[in-house]
Amino acid sequence: MTDILIKNGFVITMEGSGAGVIEKGAVAVKGSVIEDVGPTDELEKKYRAHRVFDAEGKAVMPGLIDAHIHTSLALLRGIAQDTNNWLQKGIGPFKPHFTKDEIVKGSMMNILEGIKAGTTTFCDYDNPMTEIAENYLRIGARARIASMINELPPDLHKLEIGELYPFDASCGENMLMENIKLIEEWHGRGNGRITCVFGPQGPDMLSRELLLEIKHLAEKYDTKIYLHVAQGDREIDQMIKRYGKRSVEFLDEIGYLNERLVAIHLTEATKEEAQLMAKRGASMVHCPGSIGIIDGLVPPVLEFLDAGGTAALGSDQAPGNNCSNMFNEMKFAAILNKVKMGDPTVMPAWKVMRMATIEGAKAIGLENEIGSLRPGKKADIIIVNMSEPGLCPVITRPVRNIVPNLVYSARGHEVETVIIDGNIVMENRKVLTVNEKEVIYRAQKAAEGLALRAGEDFVNSGTKTVEMMEKGYL
Amino acid sequence: MTDILIKNGFVITMEGSGAGVIEKGAVAVKGSVIEDVGPTDELEKKYRAHRVFDAEGKAVMPGLIDAHIHTSLALLRGIAQDTNNWLQKGIGPFKPHFTKDEIVKGSMMNILEGIKAGTTTFCDYDNPMTEIAENYLRIGARARIASMINELPPDLHKLEIGELYPFDASCGENMLMENIKLIEEWHGRGNGRITCVFGPQGPDMLSRELLLEIKHLAEKYDTKIYLHVAQGDREIDQMIKRYGKRSVEFLDEIGYLNERLVAIHLTEATKEEAQLMAKRGASMVHCPGSIGIIDGLVPPVLEFLDAGGTAALGSDQAPGNNCSNMFNEMKFAAILNKVKMGDPTVMPAWKVMRMATIEGAKAIGLENEIGSLRPGKKADIIIVNMSEPGLCPVITRPVRNIVPNLVYSARGHEVETVIIDGNIVMENRKVLTVNEKEVIYRAQKAAEGLALRAGEDFVNSGTKTVEMMEKGYL
Repeated sequence: MTDILIKNGFVITMEGSGAGVIEKGAVAVKGSVIEDVGPTDELEKKYRAHRVFDAEGKAVMPGLIDAHIHTSLALLRGIAQDTNNWLQKGIGPFKPHFTKDEIVKGSMMNILEGIKAGTTTFCDYDNPMTEIAENYLRIGARARIASMINELPPDLHKLEIGELYPFDASCGENMLMENIKLIEEWHGRGNGRITCVFGPQGPDMLSRELLLEIKHLAEKYDTKIYLHVAQGDREIDQMIKRYGKRSVEFLDEIGYLNERLVAIHLTEATKEEAQLMAKRGASMVHCPGSIGIIDGLVPPVLEFLDAGGTAALGSDQAPGNNCSNMFNEMKFAAILNKVKMGDPTVMPAWKVMRMATIEGAKAIGLENEIGSLRPGKKADIIIVNMSEPGLCPVITRPVRNIVPNLVYSARGHEVETVIIDGNIVMENRKVLTVNEKEVIYRAQKAAEGLALRAGEDFVNSGTKTVEMMEKGYL
Repeated sequence: MTDILIKNGFVITMEGSGAGVIEKGAVAVKGSVIEDVGPTDELEKKYRAHRVFDAEGKAVMPGLIDAHIHTSLALLRGIAQDTNNWLQKGIGPFKPHFTKDEIVKGSMMNILEGIKAGTTTFCDYDNPMTEIAENYLRIGARARIASMINELPPDLHKLEIGELYPFDASCGENMLMENIKLIEEWHGRGNGRITCVFGPQGPDMLSRELLLEIKHLAEKYDTKIYLHVAQGDREIDQMIKRYGKRSVEFLDEIGYLNERLVAIHLTEATKEEAQLMAKRGASMVHCPGSIGIIDGLVPPVLEFLDAGGTAALGSDQAPGNNCSNMFNEMKFAAILNKVKMGDPTVMPAWKVMRMATIEGAKAIGLENEIGSLRPGKKADIIIVNMSEPGLCPVITRPVRNIVPNLVYSARGHEVETVIIDGNIVMENRKVLTVNEKEVIYRAQKAAEGLALRAGEDFVNSGTKTVEMMEKGYL
């Protein structure tokens, strides 16, 4: 007797070099693990299950991996787009006003949003991460988390644009202690759903000494390191002012470029820098929607992949994207790279789907656990209704149009069922582990309080959003 | 007694120069027309209604305008992306195999998709348009339609790439007769919901003589003309081979560049050509998702707008986009233009929302009927649930985040209610005018038949999609 049998679906295994589709396929789940994957007629003979999902006319695929998200910022959705100097002037004025309670309530709403769009693994990176981790534990998601470390002053938004950030070493040590505590207390919790890594914020945001200390600790704890790298011209400007060199060269010199590094964004990385990162074995997280909105740029992911690198996709955050939906990221990854190259053949659908699943898993170091449907891997599975009008018709001969339609037309709401670690977290679009209305209500109330307190600082920041509001455009 | 009162919503009127929001606003509808728009407390005193919608926490806005769509192609969704020579080799092999019945069944599915994502007006352009018009009449949508006119041979996909198309004058005359018949029999039907214009396919696809004949007829019938202009390098190549000049110069010489022209795409138009079109008073339809996928390009809409032109948004078609969803087009219009310019401030949310509503209405010549919520205009209204996690929180002070979140995060499924011409066409996401399951089922069966018949031609066309299928990527 097995626990779950999903049958008759278009099973997109993501095994092999493409999508690895099995038509009229089945997946058997025992406990938290995938027990078997194959044709329905074979699996139906081998297994009886407590729970059977008939996925006829539906796609069955690995849960999507959001390899970079700051759920901490969710309450700021919609207040910081169409503007310059996003970090300092867009979200900066709000950050000092956030309470822990508000961050945690916003985070839960953001995780709920992701799950309802088929995300099962979240690589979250901010503070307070232990409280955010509680959200993941409670809602039943998989999370690979880091407590963010920097040495920045809280009033960054008051600095002139281009002014060198002053570092506060005691702040950095406290944040490092938080990250160590997170790893020691949280790594492996929730039947291994929660794993922890180190999270220095960016090469420009903490001292060389602290970066080196984190590097040694990551070796000691044998974890990955999340690091924003070349995330904007702001960072490059800071690096040149402080060290006389750009981020990638600096990181290479201090021994950061290796397979331990999950390099996030590379927005301002040159082709040569992207190639060097790939050669050194660092992985890359590509956040096309966010970087498109915040910077109006397309990161050099094609160059990185061509140099043999492994890349994942991330949604980044709600203010400036403004959604956490991997279907959005897949479509943008495909089209933005086509447009960058002026070539409709680059970044085909199957390739971006791999970035959101198996390649994403490799990039974050979880390829033995998740990212494809294979016996022995964790049962992180989504079932997608292909009879929504935007995903019809389903054609299987002479070509199968399922993967292209999932990438270019699915919006996320077609995901009906989400299974994480063998547990049914969403069924018929209803998340079973939290009260959805309550999550939304709490986030809404928290945002109202925050907006009230931060309002004046925001209005005084002089961002374009404020100007648009004053002109009656919004 | 009025018919419908929608109250307590965030009413996005699209009046004035921005979004024209009325918080806690209301809209009264009498028959097919908007009777009043204003604060809820005022309208509640003035009107009693047969039907009241409480839109608390919801956005109430004009129905979206899809200013360019070929619903005829819907059955080919997902078979022609990530490839070169889209027209000839991507969809070309299928076109001769289509039966009228299949086209009409696919079209209905495509219209259903649009309505469920908040589109109320469809500018459809293909054949057989009288049968497609029946779909619009039946489902209750507004449509501004043209029967497509060309002089092309049916086996275009068999021509070498770059070979000058032979023209077939008798084919052109027949198609023109169809367009005239459409105008005479259909213009104004469905209480004026259906309006008709002329639809020559492209300056390269019919002779100068036929283009001139259509121009005179459009003056006689006083209609607009839909025309693909500079839609790809293929077209420019044909024009230079045939006339020794590019499309825009040719069209200017034959007197096509004026306010009668709705110029679609302008993909390959230079900045100067886009400016000339705007100066001459032609309007532009910008299809960012489709052109991003098919050509890997971003049309010069910013240059066109800067020169004073009026632009609309369109979804184009299911094979190569692959969706008909104006929320998708709004987000892509914003981000693709930011990326093209390397500037996050261009194409702000409120501006793209105007393109999908009031500016779109101007571009197609229906600004007195639709595009904004104003007493006397047609009651084409959508109600959007803002408590979906991806649209939360809703902040109104110090800035209102509703319009940015609708543009950058809404996916279409948040649209709860669709009212067209005063009729409730969708309520609680259920379309009331057709049997949704039956529409999907019929389209699916039609696609299976078509794929079977066209399969061999498609496989022999040598497109990349076939290669990807053979390699097991799809």
